[in-house]
Amino acid sequence: MQKYPIRQGIPGFRFSAALAGIKKKTGLDLGLIVSDEPCAVAGVFTRNSVKAAPVIDCIKKVKSGVAQAVFVNSGNANACTGKQGLLSADLTCSALATQIGIKKQLTLPCSTGVIGVPLPHNKIIAALPALIAGASPALAANFSKSILTTDTCTKTIALREKIDGSYVHICGIAKGSGMIMPDMATMLAFIITDACVDKTLLASMLREENELSFNRICVDGDMSTNDSVLMMAGGKSGITIQKKKPGYKQFQSMLRKVMQELALMIVKDGEGATKLLRVLVTAARSDADAKKAAMQVARSCLVKTAFFGEDFNWGRIIAAIGQSGAACTTDTISMHFNTILAVNNGQAVPQNQKRLMRIMKKKEIALNINLNNGTKSCEVLTCDLSYDYIKINADYTT
Amino acid sequence: MQKYPIRQGIPGFRFSAALAGIKKKTGLDLGLIVSDEPCAVAGVFTRNSVKAAPVIDCIKKVKSGVAQAVFVNSGNANACTGKQGLLSADLTCSALATQIGIKKQLTLPCSTGVIGVPLPHNKIIAALPALIAGASPALAANFSKSILTTDTCTKTIALREKIDGSYVHICGIAKGSGMIMPDMATMLAFIITDACVDKTLLASMLREENELSFNRICVDGDMSTNDSVLMMAGGKSGITIQKKKPGYKQFQSMLRKVMQELALMIVKDGEGATKLLRVLVTAARSDADAKKAAMQVARSCLVKTAFFGEDFNWGRIIAAIGQSGAACTTDTISMHFNTILAVNNGQAVPQNQKRLMRIMKKKEIALNINLNNGTKSCEVLTCDLSYDYIKINADYTT
Repeated sequence: MQKYPIRQGIPGFRFSAALAGIKKKTGLDLGLIVSDEPCAVAGVFTRNSVKAAPVIDCIKKVKSGVAQAVFVNSGNANACTGKQGLLSADLTCSALATQIGIKKQLTLPCSTGVIGVPLPHNKIIAALPALIAGASPALAANFSKSILTTDTCTKTIALREKIDGSYVHICGIAKGSGMIMPDMATMLAFIITDACVDKTLLASMLREENELSFNRICVDGDMSTNDSVLMMAGGKSGITIQKKKPGYKQFQSMLRKVMQELALMIVKDGEGATKLLRVLVTAARSDADAKKAAMQVARSCLVKTAFFGEDFNWGRIIAAIGQSGAACTTDTISMHFNTILAVNNGQAVPQNQKRLMRIMKKKEIALNINLNNGTKSCEVLTCDLSYDYIKINADYTT
Repeated sequence: MQKYPIRQGIPGFRFSAALAGIKKKTGLDLGLIVSDEPCAVAGVFTRNSVKAAPVIDCIKKVKSGVAQAVFVNSGNANACTGKQGLLSADLTCSALATQIGIKKQLTLPCSTGVIGVPLPHNKIIAALPALIAGASPALAANFSKSILTTDTCTKTIALREKIDGSYVHICGIAKGSGMIMPDMATMLAFIITDACVDKTLLASMLREENELSFNRICVDGDMSTNDSVLMMAGGKSGITIQKKKPGYKQFQSMLRKVMQELALMIVKDGEGATKLLRVLVTAARSDADAKKAAMQVARSCLVKTAFFGEDFNWGRIIAAIGQSGAACTTDTISMHFNTILAVNNGQAVPQNQKRLMRIMKKKEIALNINLNNGTKSCEVLTCDLSYDYIKINADYTT
């Protein structure tokens, strides 16, 4: 498979971005992805029991497995906005559907931004004509800008590969920076392909790959009300993906790469992050244990601040593993920081201290934690916890 | 019941503190509480599966229900130190027992400080003669200083009350500032009384009151390897506490007050804390739901940074409740900040915004969250998350 510039788009889809005036700071805050035809759709959403209005709407509509347009506003999450919030989402869907000339059922709304403030739906509706008129196959990059909030950069990836003699394309566009915690994050991700995938297969593939990507990242341990990952398969490539056909594995690898790369971009852009930490737990008794241990290390404020301070405080990592509930014995845990042995059978390795101090200064550190208690493993990506996380979040709404 | 100065001590106990040279910054780092006679003892300990050597030792010894001396070093947790750590704890116990002239089984060791560094037990042993020689009924305040790490103040309380015509005393001395999370915290607490309490009753009372105090506080969500709460009942007052006797309720109230006040002092001194937050969840479906919701709000980095920034971002509180798994419906949640209605049936109350902005500036804020879904309630104490938390923890060992 090969990467290609996202401005080349995906056959069968158009993208657009506009300025609706929802964000406090002026900037693109309304985005659209529209397919030439109704196409297969699948979604995974936050498991927070408090779900934003657009999430509630999407969950209902995605059940049909068919959609044609996704539109996103940034600057306002339309969460905790009650019946008015649902009405606002519905009004914007109606207006979009009418103006494009499709059924409302085929329009999927997404929102991201501050919680608890009524959505100014009139501003969105007023911006729709320009948004729709501007849609073009070449504007995915603009779309990727329009969905950002505290993000410091856009997050996009486009891959293509020949399957059965024809190119199949997948592109992914995401936003997310804080409130990042499985199940998912304050994150939106849109994955578009020109493969032809049955809606049932699409849903199961998306769910599986989500578990291996967006459910393996953590910035601050806070779970959002708005997380949504939507995938649309338009079929313009003429290639059909089926579970037992040869192209399936190729397509699965492409999708995995798209989703894992987006997940990585989100963690790297974690609010205030200065370092990327890859927490890999191996030799755990079960998959669940491996994930529990990796996740507890990844969300520990004390571990994360120690890495920010470039302080080799490995005891905090052991304490987090102990807190996780994963079966293990301190005396058998070993740990490498990158390739250097940091902890051997539960104890520090003094002769490696100098090399470890140098590793602590790197921008990317792999913590390889061997529980010596089984055969299962799990990797979770996270970042450090810095002054800037506090700065960004102490003053977000006002 | 009435408070009295802790320098007046508790009949039947002596206290001491010494300088062993374990802390990086010179200061008292070795403390001792010793009873004139063997007395009833009970303990509750961290549920982290990674337990420090002294915790492992205490858990074994406390099973007998009898002890005579507790000694504490600060500056080194003796956690993740393997067999050598257990040996170090044992060596210090042996030395203390020999020098006091009691059985080793009656000596309880505690440690707090950095994890993963071998305990310099020789420094402790060398300081024991001065520690033992200096023991006096009047030195509880010195002891309270010797157990501190990142704490900015000592945490003590002493109460007395007449039961059956005689004064009964309880005093509590604690340390704890970060790594504060139930089940318990990086905290040590020592509770001493001159009541006569059977070891079985003592254990059950301590467990019950611990659930209502130290298990209801959270600073950063990190669970320690060293948490220990030890209670000793010496009996010098001549008053025996029994479950069905009249003095029981009085004694229970005293103990509750001691433990809840210490818990409050720990949160107020939370690393970098600028505000005390009392998170009270009411009208939950079950006790477990009330605690889950209160705890998730209390440990949310986003909620805590918002309070640090004095930013009325109530949506983050609702999102944390949703994340907790407690049964609730957004549309029925109401919330008061102190006495001001902030959220009514899941939505903001615009006419109260100005008053709420004033409340956000206070040093102590009560979040009263009504789930409108039952009759159960739970209060958890926490603090905000500030730049200083990062500062304190980014550079702890080095």
